Amino acid sequence: MTDPALIALDWGTTNVRAALLDGEGQVLEARKGESGVGSLDEAGFIARFGELTEGWPKLPAIACGMVGSRQGWSEAHYCELPLDVSQLAAKLHRTNHLTIVPGVMKDTLDQADVMRGEETQIAALLAENPAFDGTIVLPGTHSKWARIAKGKLVDFKTYMTGELFDAFAGHTILRHTVQPAELDADDNAFDVAVGDVFMTKGSDWGRFFNLRAAALVGETLPGQLREKLSGYLIGMELSSAAQDGFDVQAVTIIGGGALVERYTRALAVLAADVTPRESDTLIWPALFALAQQANMIGNET
Amino acid sequence: MTDPALIALDWGTTNVRAALLDGEGQVLEARKGESGVGSLDEAGFIARFGELTEGWPKLPAIACGMVGSRQGWSEAHYCELPLDVSQLAAKLHRTNHLTIVPGVMKDTLDQADVMRGEETQIAALLAENPAFDGTIVLPGTHSKWARIAKGKLVDFKTYMTGELFDAFAGHTILRHTVQPAELDADDNAFDVAVGDVFMTKGSDWGRFFNLRAAALVGETLPGQLREKLSGYLIGMELSSAAQDGFDVQAVTIIGGGALVERYTRALAVLAADVTPRESDTLIWPALFALAQQANMIGNET
Repeated sequence: MTDPALIALDWGTTNVRAALLDGEGQVLEARKGESGVGSLDEAGFIARFGELTEGWPKLPAIACGMVGSRQGWSEAHYCELPLDVSQLAAKLHRTNHLTIVPGVMKDTLDQADVMRGEETQIAALLAENPAFDGTIVLPGTHSKWARIAKGKLVDFKTYMTGELFDAFAGHTILRHTVQPAELDADDNAFDVAVGDVFMTKGSDWGRFFNLRAAALVGETLPGQLREKLSGYLIGMELSSAAQDGFDVQAVTIIGGGALVERYTRALAVLAADVTPRESDTLIWPALFALAQQANMIGNET
Repeated sequence: MTDPALIALDWGTTNVRAALLDGEGQVLEARKGESGVGSLDEAGFIARFGELTEGWPKLPAIACGMVGSRQGWSEAHYCELPLDVSQLAAKLHRTNHLTIVPGVMKDTLDQADVMRGEETQIAALLAENPAFDGTIVLPGTHSKWARIAKGKLVDFKTYMTGELFDAFAGHTILRHTVQPAELDADDNAFDVAVGDVFMTKGSDWGRFFNLRAAALVGETLPGQLREKLSGYLIGMELSSAAQDGFDVQAVTIIGGGALVERYTRALAVLAADVTPRESDTLIWPALFALAQQANMIGNET
């Protein structure tokens, strides 16, 4: 282990993670905090950054994520498709306090899409395997599907699955119906829901009220209804992704704990070949590699 | 015009309308108030009923809608499909204060659905035209599609379109994107959105984030994004209804003002033959007819 050499931040809309890395990219210390994106002004961001890195030496800092959006600390521009990862390092956005990884934009006719943060995790996978070819999914509030061809990001699409689950379960009549409940470990309501949606190509918009009615007529257990709602929404994501040209039969999932498990289970319904990866093990090496390529890390000789 | 003979109420989840009718079903006076369903106890309902009918003579009262649900004043049971309208009169739910029209339930395998209130409006159309055959739509928070064969209600389905519009526009990241705005009268963003969804059978679940991204990359005007969201959701309803076996080429719409216009416009995209009907002109005659069939109206000789 060597001396501290870089501060790396994964700075999203809700949370921010910070790590103090040594000259070989090893994590010396990691911290978490609230992100503030969308609510802080510049002075607020400087203060938040100070809290996060308190007691750490003054070092170059690199960040990815929504911190570089228009609602963030300082707007970093977008790269366009197809994207070679080396372009991310070439287009880093430099400010007085930190260097921000650019986002990626897709702006073909009526198919606009954007990502900020996920490109760095994808870059990490591509650094490990420069000839990667296939589909990467980053499930979450806004799930991202990425298509990689010969190590380049050639297409991606965002599905608002996590956020829609919260909106359906919290802000519609389904809120009476989909309360969390204990389930038998072998309950397969989620799997059946995913399969149903996939078979019908996600086209049945009446499924949602059906959950409410099933509760009223006492047809289904409450815990199953929540699992069904989750299965419907993730099933619609899988179905759309397949129709959007993503290979859903061989998928690498990047994410954290329960969400990776849930998507792995959903993809198992399609008999897909799934490679799960924890984002924690990818994000710091990726930011370290980008900082290295941009000569942000001092050469200790 | 004759003496007051009946109090009729259309008592939904949010609002209640009350009318004092004479012995021929003419409206002598109409009032509106908040419904209280879901928040009042029995004493509260009695008080609300008292306020609504204050100064009116003590008369038999008939109500339809969510007042008869489990969260309402007194639970009226459900009729099952296929439903002959005369069955509604035969199964009226009588309480000390008012008589409640039963709802309708559909409980076939994994296709549970319920309605309360819409059955009375449908009954009104069938009273006018006992040989009615075709599709009736009642757009709203929970849009109902009804299939009528030879004057009987044989199938129906609920789409949570209005409520989902509110959840998407108010409780997701789209809230930044779909603020109301002035539009040119000839703007056709809504129509294009309905057509796109119908062509692709509502299967593209990525459309929603696309609205957000289109705003970020400056591709679309803000007012258009709200119209597009509305078009996507109503388009998904139409597409699902068609796949669920409803004839979307000849549709009778029952509703009020702007909503009837919006659905008429959406159906025009499909070149459908549309018959719009104002629910105000249907609900009082329907409740009057049911009260007559149940001998609730005194014979003045």
